[in-house]
Amino acid sequence: MAGFTTYDSDTLRSLHRKLLLEYEGFKQKNLKLDMSRGKPCPEQLDLTDGLLSCLNGDYLAEDGTDCRNYGGVEGLPEARRLFASCLGVQPEEIIVSGNSSLALMHDLIARAMLFGVDDQERPWGEGPVKFLCPCPGYDRHFALCELFKIEMIPVPMRDDGPAIDQIEELVAHDPSIKGIWCVPMYSNPTGVTYSDEVVTRLATMKTKATDFRIFWDNAYALHHLTDQPDRLLNILEVCREANNPDRVYIFSSTSKISYAGAGVAMVASSVKNIRRLARLMSLQTIGPNKLNQLCHVRFFKDLENIHAHMKKHAAILRPKFQLVQDILQRELGDKKIATWTKPRGGYFISLNTLEGCAKKVVQLAAEAGVIFTKAGATFPYGYDPLDQNIRIAPTYPPLHELKTAMELFSLCVQLASIEKILMDRAAETITLSSVQTAKTG
Amino acid sequence: MAGFTTYDSDTLRSLHRKLLLEYEGFKQKNLKLDMSRGKPCPEQLDLTDGLLSCLNGDYLAEDGTDCRNYGGVEGLPEARRLFASCLGVQPEEIIVSGNSSLALMHDLIARAMLFGVDDQERPWGEGPVKFLCPCPGYDRHFALCELFKIEMIPVPMRDDGPAIDQIEELVAHDPSIKGIWCVPMYSNPTGVTYSDEVVTRLATMKTKATDFRIFWDNAYALHHLTDQPDRLLNILEVCREANNPDRVYIFSSTSKISYAGAGVAMVASSVKNIRRLARLMSLQTIGPNKLNQLCHVRFFKDLENIHAHMKKHAAILRPKFQLVQDILQRELGDKKIATWTKPRGGYFISLNTLEGCAKKVVQLAAEAGVIFTKAGATFPYGYDPLDQNIRIAPTYPPLHELKTAMELFSLCVQLASIEKILMDRAAETITLSSVQTAKTG
Repeated sequence: MAGFTTYDSDTLRSLHRKLLLEYEGFKQKNLKLDMSRGKPCPEQLDLTDGLLSCLNGDYLAEDGTDCRNYGGVEGLPEARRLFASCLGVQPEEIIVSGNSSLALMHDLIARAMLFGVDDQERPWGEGPVKFLCPCPGYDRHFALCELFKIEMIPVPMRDDGPAIDQIEELVAHDPSIKGIWCVPMYSNPTGVTYSDEVVTRLATMKTKATDFRIFWDNAYALHHLTDQPDRLLNILEVCREANNPDRVYIFSSTSKISYAGAGVAMVASSVKNIRRLARLMSLQTIGPNKLNQLCHVRFFKDLENIHAHMKKHAAILRPKFQLVQDILQRELGDKKIATWTKPRGGYFISLNTLEGCAKKVVQLAAEAGVIFTKAGATFPYGYDPLDQNIRIAPTYPPLHELKTAMELFSLCVQLASIEKILMDRAAETITLSSVQTAKTG
Repeated sequence: MAGFTTYDSDTLRSLHRKLLLEYEGFKQKNLKLDMSRGKPCPEQLDLTDGLLSCLNGDYLAEDGTDCRNYGGVEGLPEARRLFASCLGVQPEEIIVSGNSSLALMHDLIARAMLFGVDDQERPWGEGPVKFLCPCPGYDRHFALCELFKIEMIPVPMRDDGPAIDQIEELVAHDPSIKGIWCVPMYSNPTGVTYSDEVVTRLATMKTKATDFRIFWDNAYALHHLTDQPDRLLNILEVCREANNPDRVYIFSSTSKISYAGAGVAMVASSVKNIRRLARLMSLQTIGPNKLNQLCHVRFFKDLENIHAHMKKHAAILRPKFQLVQDILQRELGDKKIATWTKPRGGYFISLNTLEGCAKKVVQLAAEAGVIFTKAGATFPYGYDPLDQNIRIAPTYPPLHELKTAMELFSLCVQLASIEKILMDRAAETITLSSVQTAKTG
């Protein structure tokens, strides 16, 4: 079908009036829904029932450590082993920590600013620091850069990962580019999993900065929505083979496996990096919450069980993602005013409106009581130059609320698109008539 | 009685031989005891049995928050209220966080270096930074200064707190003195509780630095060993009354109330400081482990219950502290080679040997299989100028091990003291005879 842009203006105006009535109908419902963050829903959290009470008074780790007491900054041996297996690394290549992988990233950057990332290198804070930011991307990554006054260089996301040609070119010449943010699997928000080629080129590319680091936020490593999971190349191995063994920090957590607020977070890297990090962390804390680690190990036991557990998450999430796809397809599929991703895992759907419509859509939805992620949030400094990307987080609301929210959302996309098309036409008319006036004047 | 220094050298030598035989006897036992850290013992940890399993599937906080999910960087409302009552502050003056108060201190200093302690002030990292370090003090505080390249200025501890005259003089003139470490109640390691006068003068004194901060590590606020607890003046109130409302950060935790490795830590300060800190923390983490906070609130309920719980801790610890006092008094009481504190709370006894003996004592004990805190650890840079302070941590070992350890320790003090006295006399003889030689030469 032809799409909104081919409609004549009267048709669009009359459609707009009709849609506006529907929109007012939504407003009457006094909705109060929040689709702004990638939060697991209560049913997902229920999957981990019993985790806290599974110790039955046995607080000893396999090496005899009383997990109730101090110590063990690298994490319990069995926790390191279990989560190393999740990430395809060795136990000595991982630190299992508190409940927040974001805190691990934050603290790693704070340390890099103050002490550098290697004892042989200068603190980042001594000079300008830039990070490459594939976008659309994760707003909390970008917020860390803003906090630490790290200049962000946007790099477009493609279907196989970030634009690697551009990245190679940039890092080869600018020594102040010290890092890149990556969500390599079921990327936030586009759902893309990096291709083997992109991973390999990231690991092997020449960087002008000798202390360049990849911040590999593998938050959705096990978070498949289909029975044919995407495959991600093991970047730590590729880095090692490329003789860049210390280039990557891999982050992950059980926030979307066990409890979003009370899981276990981890960072993996070369043994050299991990040892240095453990040394610095031992000055920050006497140790992480080992009881929670022990609960996780006793509850989940092994990787196979975690995979089985993740299938239960997928069973809850699949209908939600499907519903969003169905409504978007039904409401917007033939109108040529939006494109969106169909992720095979992760927590988000990324939608692009016509240029200049995203803010308006989010605002319209908010005024009718449904909060979406702030438009622009998926770009550095909250600035989406084309004002067209919106992140949809379908995991938290129950299906009936999700249905309402997405129907309203689709309506808002249509309203904003029509307004945009009509405005563009009006502007064109004014431009044309002023040209006319100039000619005849 | 007269003490070792009055003995003639032959008596000392023969006593040394006798004690050395006893020491060899200890060596035969192949001891392997660790008295180096202030760790709670298993019986103390058992007091909190049931904490992890007390939720019974009810994960909702009083405001409806699902504690399993993301959010709430300041901590649960009921956790803020409970721990505010422990510290005598208001709920809005406290952030309840993860398991480590040391991490709160570390992160606060990292932020001060990078961003300053106030939006109106410069980052500390832009200039030289010095901290006042009452000593003997806590080695992990000093390690933080070393990490962040903060120059440490030692200030002697007195019976009523750190030497306040000296502190007032220093902070009045040096704008690079940005902070002071304090363990104000049952101080680590001397057991001193700061007098009202010292607290008041710390809160009211004029400081050259406008961004001077007191790091008030109130780790032992509720950790009384007697039925007549020490009283500590509420420094946050005194600071407010003195028109220095933002001067103090108060730290505490349940590490020695519930679990040393899996408790809840907190920081209290003015509402202004707390709001700024919460804003910065919200970029570091989406929230602390709220499930653990909920477990703590449900288990402990209120301040009265915590006090009752602390009495059970005291009942376990009192005999240990008493045993150390008894053995020290019996073995060293009349020999004038050591003085030690008799704390009414906290986790340590601080002992001073004759000058120049502490390292030797710790070394002798280690060679016989008993590890004490490294001599010098209680001073900045690990350097005790008089080499005489040793921190004794009696909480962890069972009584029979503690008895062995302290008997060995007392023996080591005697051995090292005799060696020191004999060496001093030999040195004196050499000096005298060289004076003699010079005279007759």
